[in-house]
Amino acid sequence: MTKTREIHLAARPNGAPTPDDFALVEVDLPQLGPGQVLLRNLVMSVDPYMRGRMNDVKSYVPPFQLDAVLDGGAIGEVVESHHPSLVPGDVVLHGLGWRDHAITEAARVRKVDPSLGASSYLGALGMPGLTAYVGLLDIAAMKPGDTVFISGAAGAVGSLAGQIAKQRGAARVIGSAGSAAKVERLTGTLGFDAAFNYKDAPVRDQLRTAAPDGIDVYFDNVGGDHLEAAISALNVNGRVALCGAVAQYNATDATPGPRNLALAVGKRLTLRGFIVSDHNGRMGDFLAEMAPWLASGAVRFDETVVEGLENAPSALIGLLNGENTGKMIVRL
Amino acid sequence: MTKTREIHLAARPNGAPTPDDFALVEVDLPQLGPGQVLLRNLVMSVDPYMRGRMNDVKSYVPPFQLDAVLDGGAIGEVVESHHPSLVPGDVVLHGLGWRDHAITEAARVRKVDPSLGASSYLGALGMPGLTAYVGLLDIAAMKPGDTVFISGAAGAVGSLAGQIAKQRGAARVIGSAGSAAKVERLTGTLGFDAAFNYKDAPVRDQLRTAAPDGIDVYFDNVGGDHLEAAISALNVNGRVALCGAVAQYNATDATPGPRNLALAVGKRLTLRGFIVSDHNGRMGDFLAEMAPWLASGAVRFDETVVEGLENAPSALIGLLNGENTGKMIVRL
Repeated sequence: MTKTREIHLAARPNGAPTPDDFALVEVDLPQLGPGQVLLRNLVMSVDPYMRGRMNDVKSYVPPFQLDAVLDGGAIGEVVESHHPSLVPGDVVLHGLGWRDHAITEAARVRKVDPSLGASSYLGALGMPGLTAYVGLLDIAAMKPGDTVFISGAAGAVGSLAGQIAKQRGAARVIGSAGSAAKVERLTGTLGFDAAFNYKDAPVRDQLRTAAPDGIDVYFDNVGGDHLEAAISALNVNGRVALCGAVAQYNATDATPGPRNLALAVGKRLTLRGFIVSDHNGRMGDFLAEMAPWLASGAVRFDETVVEGLENAPSALIGLLNGENTGKMIVRL
Repeated sequence: MTKTREIHLAARPNGAPTPDDFALVEVDLPQLGPGQVLLRNLVMSVDPYMRGRMNDVKSYVPPFQLDAVLDGGAIGEVVESHHPSLVPGDVVLHGLGWRDHAITEAARVRKVDPSLGASSYLGALGMPGLTAYVGLLDIAAMKPGDTVFISGAAGAVGSLAGQIAKQRGAARVIGSAGSAAKVERLTGTLGFDAAFNYKDAPVRDQLRTAAPDGIDVYFDNVGGDHLEAAISALNVNGRVALCGAVAQYNATDATPGPRNLALAVGKRLTLRGFIVSDHNGRMGDFLAEMAPWLASGAVRFDETVVEGLENAPSALIGLLNGENTGKMIVRL
């Protein structure tokens, strides 16, 4: 094998990405160096934060480079190893997605147990799960008895945040999502106490109906009018975990901020942004709770699967349009 | 003496208050009951939060009532006492401003040492001082070496916050104010490292010039474009103490929120609102630091004095227009 395929950034999108912003490129596979492994990717992740990396702006992760391969979380099977810690057939978590094969240092991959489902390490047991756990418990300091509101609640992070909240004793968990099917999934299967389709009516009105006594915690995955509605609904000493703003990722103009932020003074609100990679030290605590929840079925995790590297760009585009329920992954 | 004068709320303002929203009323002084004291007010406070109390909305302090006397911090001299703990001539801090005389329970006043300047208990040693101290050190968690930006910096709270920051080891303290004279006062006398007049040019541009390496802490007294500029300038792990939004107190429409709030995610910002009365437990720590700073001249405190109860409404109106340098008080 001397050739493989990669997805390159062909152009920086202006607004929503289109297929033309990506290019499927056949490249020569380099020789394996000392200490390196050759991986055949089994699944790769597409995540909302990748949209930000398509812009050429300074951020907490460096931007993707034009005419170079993208990267991101992936699960690969070792094909060839120049390091004693790994042998062909091992399954590993690593950061070189968006390509059929990857070559990397053995030290930069983490061996995983494929019996738990390889893709779970991109989702419930991976970055999205830790994001939900840290955002809810550390950043928003959720306590038993709290009423919790989660936007993007049918997404990978949101669906886990809501279920963790219930497991940790939230009195009431409310989710918003963008379709009737997602809303039904939240209340019918994932244990949310209430959910609504934000496209049906103003978020503020629907949230007031779902949480007549207000909310204590808001887990913000979308920004925009959801955040403004949450600020209105938050009780005194309420906390907001600012996890992302999907509604704004494709925006070409500055989007309006919450017009009611001055309420944060009298209500003593705390709004706090976070990036999960600052909190990798919590991975042990997280896995100790999450793995049993998953194994027992107490927490469920949905995946939306797209087949084939050539469809990875449309998977990311679809994710930004809310076409996923749970984690969006690409099977290679 | 059987008559005294009070300021009543004559109408709820729509936008900026006008003199017609207040009424100077002569009333009968009631008889002194058991345990009560009669006070002659020496000075009274006007504070930005009073504007909010002129609206009939639920907030952290109840609204003023129409056709009833206003209230607020004041210093009075005991004229007559029906309680053994106080004798005529004692000077006390209490909550019944906006009137020439007050009758209250002896238990609801606090005796102060008039040799430190009676009005200081309405300012540097009182609520504004504690607000600055708690907001800067507890809410925004300022650390030595931080670069600190303060809006409304020539006001009572802002001028103290800036000086406390310097005393506590801030690397650089930047203030904004609304006139050239105030800006000169900040850098020339109060020890700010830089200051600008927010009316001269966009806050964002002036702040970038004053803090080319960004800021770590923002003490927000005004909201609006100052907050948006601060979010842009904040470094990773930056903290904002949301103390008030003078720019919005007189607003009749919802004011735009910061369009760049989504930056809080990648920069891991924390924005936290607070109300000083939640933090009265810090009064001892605060006075232990502030009293020596004031006595030594390390911290200076400006007052803008208006004479006469009949001019108290214009003092509050002027305060909301930024006509004060330091604490606005009314001498009665």
